[in-house]
Amino acid sequence: MVHAEISVYPVGTDSTSLGFYIAKAIESIDINGISYQVTPMGTILESGSVEKIFEATRAAIETIHRLGVKRVEVILKIDSRTDKTQSMQQKVQSVDRYLSKGA
Amino acid sequence: MVHAEISVYPVGTDSTSLGFYIAKAIESIDINGISYQVTPMGTILESGSVEKIFEATRAAIETIHRLGVKRVEVILKIDSRTDKTQSMQQKVQSVDRYLSKGA
Amino acid sequence: MVHAEISVYPVGTDSTSLGFYIAKAIESIDINGISYQVTPMGTILESGSVEKIFEATRAAIETIHRLGVKRVEVILKIDSRTDKTQSMQQKVQSVDRYLSKGA
Amino acid sequence: MVHAEISVYPVGTDSTSLGFYIAKAIESIDINGISYQVTPMGTILESGSVEKIFEATRAAIETIHRLGVKRVEVILKIDSRTDKTQSMQQKVQSVDRYLSKGA
Repeated sequence: MVHAEISVYPVGTDSTSLGFYIAKAIESIDINGISYQVTPMGTILESGSVEKIFEATRAAIETIHRLGVKRVEVILKIDSRTDKTQSMQQKVQSVDRYLSKGA
Repeated sequence: MVHAEISVYPVGTDSTSLGFYIAKAIESIDINGISYQVTPMGTILESGSVEKIFEATRAAIETIHRLGVKRVEVILKIDSRTDKTQSMQQKVQSVDRYLSKGA
Repeated sequence: MVHAEISVYPVGTDSTSLGFYIAKAIESIDINGISYQVTPMGTILESGSVEKIFEATRAAIETIHRLGVKRVEVILKIDSRTDKTQSMQQKVQSVDRYLSKGA
Repeated sequence: MVHAEISVYPVGTDSTSLGFYIAKAIESIDINGISYQVTPMGTILESGSVEKIFEATRAAIETIHRLGVKRVEVILKIDSRTDKTQSMQQKVQSVDRYLSKGA
């Protein structure tokens, strides 16, 4: 199980509003074999293979360029573990149970 | 309004389970003037000033060291804008309204 | 031309020294069609296609796991542009010429 | 000893060329008690305290805004260790000595 988080920053758009570009990038990563969750700072991906994460990232980059943006910065965080299969929810729970009060 | 996301990776713990360390780091950033949201890949922070974000990050680093971890890697993403005051929820909504189907 | 930077953080090693793991990861990304430069905070990659960047990242992750590390965190920054072909050196020069004194 | 890497991505500039903004940000982080090194993907900082790293990051953000950019994304990586004092050069050497061929 691989978790990842992708953030895309289009460069050279005239506007500071990126919502449209990010929405189109998210739609393009909605591919077979990926679960995702949108957060205020990026989109979290879950998949059985890192290959799918790369496929999603490639789709996001291509989508931004296809929308006419000539430069895009991408930050991809990957959490790859071979000892455990944990869902996104279980990852948060594994932190939560140590919190004095709930998160 | 500043949004940020902090991820901490303790180095040299014997276990691959980081939940305890991350929970203690999160408790330490629960300071006056910061709202936060725990995700599977980090903790998202919202504050009126970048100063508070740094204060929270410093607290997280110190907490990890105080727990006996001698090395910690931190990834801090900051989204600083002067043209608009947007909450974490509004950021997600600004993406959401462009999605063909909801996120 | 795509530039990227990869940082790998093995989790659950008992030592805080990561030099050995990082060296082996770097050796594995030394593949056809990639130029790279080691820095104190990561390894910078240059390639004609983002596909090669993913291939290198996959190789680095697999190498760390093959060395017995069951969890690894990866931060991959990608700078993808379609309007210009710039080498790593030219990127630094494009900043340098605006500096009052050299970098 | 703390090492860090800062990358700034101005948003909503009409050009894809960021060299000018990055140069001005770098000049602003050239403060007492910080050593730095410009790379093709960011600027690496070394300091005796994490406080200086935050001071530099704040200066970079303020500089970008003062140049008229209303939104800026910052990625700050911090490597904080309490067990060892290592310079930027020594960090690269600690990887280098494990490489079959030089980096």
